[in-house]
Amino acid sequence: MSDQVFAEVSQEALLKIFTIPEAPDSTLGKIEKHLSENLMGFLGERIVAREKPLHEIEQNFRDSSVPEQPRYVSDHTEFLLNNLVAHSVHTSSPRFIGHMTSALPYFLLPLAKLMVGLNQNLVKIETSKAFTPLERNVLGMLHHLVYQRDDAFYQRWMHSAQHSLGAMCSGGTIANITALWVARNMLLKPDGDFTGISNEGLAAGLAHYGYKRLTVMVSERGHYSLGKAADVLGIGRRNLIAIPTDSENRIRTDKLREACAQVAADGGKVLAIVGVAGATETGHIDPLSELADIAAEVGAHYHVDAAWGGATLMSGKYRKLLAGTERADSVTIDAHKQMYVPMGAGMVLFREPSMVRAIEHHAEYVIRHGSKDLGAHTMEGSRPGMAMLVYSALHVMGRRGYELLIDQSIERAHQFAELINAQDDFEVITDPQLCILTYRFIPAKVKQVIAQANAEQIRRIMPHLNALTRFIQKRQRETGTSFVSRTKLTPAHYFREPTVVFRVVLANPLTTPAMLAEILQEQREIAGQAMSLRGALYTELRELGLVREQSR
Amino acid sequence: MSDQVFAEVSQEALLKIFTIPEAPDSTLGKIEKHLSENLMGFLGERIVAREKPLHEIEQNFRDSSVPEQPRYVSDHTEFLLNNLVAHSVHTSSPRFIGHMTSALPYFLLPLAKLMVGLNQNLVKIETSKAFTPLERNVLGMLHHLVYQRDDAFYQRWMHSAQHSLGAMCSGGTIANITALWVARNMLLKPDGDFTGISNEGLAAGLAHYGYKRLTVMVSERGHYSLGKAADVLGIGRRNLIAIPTDSENRIRTDKLREACAQVAADGGKVLAIVGVAGATETGHIDPLSELADIAAEVGAHYHVDAAWGGATLMSGKYRKLLAGTERADSVTIDAHKQMYVPMGAGMVLFREPSMVRAIEHHAEYVIRHGSKDLGAHTMEGSRPGMAMLVYSALHVMGRRGYELLIDQSIERAHQFAELINAQDDFEVITDPQLCILTYRFIPAKVKQVIAQANAEQIRRIMPHLNALTRFIQKRQRETGTSFVSRTKLTPAHYFREPTVVFRVVLANPLTTPAMLAEILQEQREIAGQAMSLRGALYTELRELGLVREQSR
Repeated sequence: MSDQVFAEVSQEALLKIFTIPEAPDSTLGKIEKHLSENLMGFLGERIVAREKPLHEIEQNFRDSSVPEQPRYVSDHTEFLLNNLVAHSVHTSSPRFIGHMTSALPYFLLPLAKLMVGLNQNLVKIETSKAFTPLERNVLGMLHHLVYQRDDAFYQRWMHSAQHSLGAMCSGGTIANITALWVARNMLLKPDGDFTGISNEGLAAGLAHYGYKRLTVMVSERGHYSLGKAADVLGIGRRNLIAIPTDSENRIRTDKLREACAQVAADGGKVLAIVGVAGATETGHIDPLSELADIAAEVGAHYHVDAAWGGATLMSGKYRKLLAGTERADSVTIDAHKQMYVPMGAGMVLFREPSMVRAIEHHAEYVIRHGSKDLGAHTMEGSRPGMAMLVYSALHVMGRRGYELLIDQSIERAHQFAELINAQDDFEVITDPQLCILTYRFIPAKVKQVIAQANAEQIRRIMPHLNALTRFIQKRQRETGTSFVSRTKLTPAHYFREPTVVFRVVLANPLTTPAMLAEILQEQREIAGQAMSLRGALYTELRELGLVREQSR
Repeated sequence: MSDQVFAEVSQEALLKIFTIPEAPDSTLGKIEKHLSENLMGFLGERIVAREKPLHEIEQNFRDSSVPEQPRYVSDHTEFLLNNLVAHSVHTSSPRFIGHMTSALPYFLLPLAKLMVGLNQNLVKIETSKAFTPLERNVLGMLHHLVYQRDDAFYQRWMHSAQHSLGAMCSGGTIANITALWVARNMLLKPDGDFTGISNEGLAAGLAHYGYKRLTVMVSERGHYSLGKAADVLGIGRRNLIAIPTDSENRIRTDKLREACAQVAADGGKVLAIVGVAGATETGHIDPLSELADIAAEVGAHYHVDAAWGGATLMSGKYRKLLAGTERADSVTIDAHKQMYVPMGAGMVLFREPSMVRAIEHHAEYVIRHGSKDLGAHTMEGSRPGMAMLVYSALHVMGRRGYELLIDQSIERAHQFAELINAQDDFEVITDPQLCILTYRFIPAKVKQVIAQANAEQIRRIMPHLNALTRFIQKRQRETGTSFVSRTKLTPAHYFREPTVVFRVVLANPLTTPAMLAEILQEQREIAGQAMSLRGALYTELRELGLVREQSR
């Protein structure tokens, strides 16, 4: 053993790895210091990823057997640093603006280590104790952020054993599934001889209530987790009805009303209407109050998916964008998105503390009747104490700290949209409402003529522009100095023709206007290399008679 | 700001908390050191929890508003240390032997901090890169541990985009739900005009295939997550059929065959048979090979819930206890149980790499067709890189390190059973098969006479013994020096009368025989204080004519 840790199969060596190491000068203390320095070095690099193809990285992860012999921690750590960390994605880089995973405030890292070290299990008080009231407190604070009930409400319900103001979960997907699970079980509740869907199953529930099918209504911009929810819950993906959006990517309430009427006319029942508060692809927010009206009219559960947009409730200036959220029966918010908490911190909130009764469950050895065990009302069982990190972020940054972050993000997105529009060879596809926008490169000549193109011409031009956008996005990602993501939209001004776009999420407070300008310049340069794609585009344009001369 | 961190609402202060702190002598460096020392102090304490009632702890977590102003990290840290950490549960204490949450090897803590700091999101390669092959590698290693396929199999499938050998998830509950989700969707698959349950929903699937209902068969010792799965998936809790167990808490296969025949006779279909490999309450393992035969006979999906027992596959000596697991279609294993990884590391493994197709899903901006994004085959969406900790534990401890841990745990459980049986005033209720056993305190005089009691006498005595067991367990937990859990069983030798028992899980390698003896002694002393409960017990015994003299 001497100055190494473990790598020996003996009782003594085993006990040693479970025993508290002695202070910083121990081997483990040195390894920890080395790891910390390496992590800080990694996080400090101003690149997004190193250029190494995936199939090469896979070579390091090909041995399918559990290794027979133990290995020194120091050797293993070196392996990880060289082969895993070095080829991770710098999600905290200010030039990583492609997804909702952003930089973390550094004070959360030592707290995360504390959380992991305590290894509490929130399913039951016996393995969490103070973490249980803390988690209930976090749910209370977020509930208050959304619903603004009075103090008496929270004093009565926040710590009540038979109630929950929501459920912490690993992420927005489980949150959305949980919300629709509750909605489904409340709709097909016990009634006379029928003991409820939870007990008898979905088919019996539909038969008892005389519904041919249940549907969930959401705009075509709804998150893909809702499709999963419809599948898992037995509702069926085709009964998740995608309602068209207006020119600003918001659900068309006239179309929603028509669709709801059609479902009823066919003998179905609208289980839930889902409002989108911060669409994953474009950041847009549905007319949430009007959706609440419609849900009330048709007697449907009203869920708001604010996984991304929920944090905006902390901004005095932009909170109004989410007006109507407080009328939702349930709301999803991800703390690991714009609340800047590490991955694994989703939440669903319920307007009424008794709604979770619809999914309550017990066992003999835990979550017994009358206990305050949080596990009685969650889809997951054993869960870590992530609530502690949410609690800490809320306290250290405060509402006003978050407000500053949110306001700046949104304003940065507007500035970037202006910058894009000022270019001859870029165009904004969806304007930002929150801090998300989409745009694309479009050669200056094409930009000049595309506004005059008719539907048929657009249909023929678009595949070429889409190929170009895909090419630029992939090449930029591979180069590794910056990262934007891409998606496919159907913009009204392009006759709903599928349009591939760059998607940016401007949540990192360290992203500067200069960096954004550089990202555009890099994209322009990559476009310059796409000779054959551009050639094909111009050939098409000439054939369509939209340009005349030989252009590249 | 000076020597404090944040607590100011300004752009400058905000940027600072997202910027890498300068080395160890920074304020955050000092706070980190302080936190680490406190954590080590906490983990070094030889108690399980401090005696403080929950309602007092709740007083610190009553303010339901998001705090308006930011707060110094140092102040917040002090608050957490005094009010959260100090009143957490010492799950790593060698005297905490009540649940499956155990000590962690210390080398995982710096690695956990690294994992959190990197903040990768495993749903897609664009936010995980090398973490994706690593996670596929971990699933491959666990798949190999269970199924032992040859190297060519893993070279072909482990990193294949359209396939998965399993899914990492937050815990065993999501793993079990995922397994039954796959089973359900495979059974009610597309067929002719029917586009499959995933698309059309459960009721349409049942109608198409002509099944009155689907059932899941599991022993009465099955984990409560299976009830949740039956609920969530629309199957209904009453269609989760609890099969009686034999005197050793293993499923009675004769009763299972009868129940399967009955389901078919009534027009239902057995969706899945679930084998228990390490019952949560007693640690017992079903006859897994025979269950595989029955599943094949009735054409049901065969799932093995080895959330607890799966790690035993690493022991050359005890691996045979799980013989038959390799015939399962799917297997649940929790790395945060007996694989000693922090909370949040569940897994489901699939025998055939193509089975996940039944739950495959895509979106335009991530997990596109053909990508290697892991999110296409998981119930959860965004997920942290927990696989890194599983990978690290497997490499640093090696199969042989785990073997030593597993073997010692099982042998310690047998020793403890012997110790209990040697006492005049304790009795083992379920013998250990893995490292879990149940027992209870029973006054010496009662122990002498209870073997002669008939069913009616047991029925009358048992509530008194149950009250005594509950009293001891609660008081011992509150005292805080040690912790055993409790559950309710129906032992054959007590005429299936509900029997409250202490449940111990001997997974912590630091738990010594001396500690176990002390735990018994403490329980004996607490029992001595339960004057009125013992009085009522003896009154009952005298009325039943089982004892004569005045005893206490």
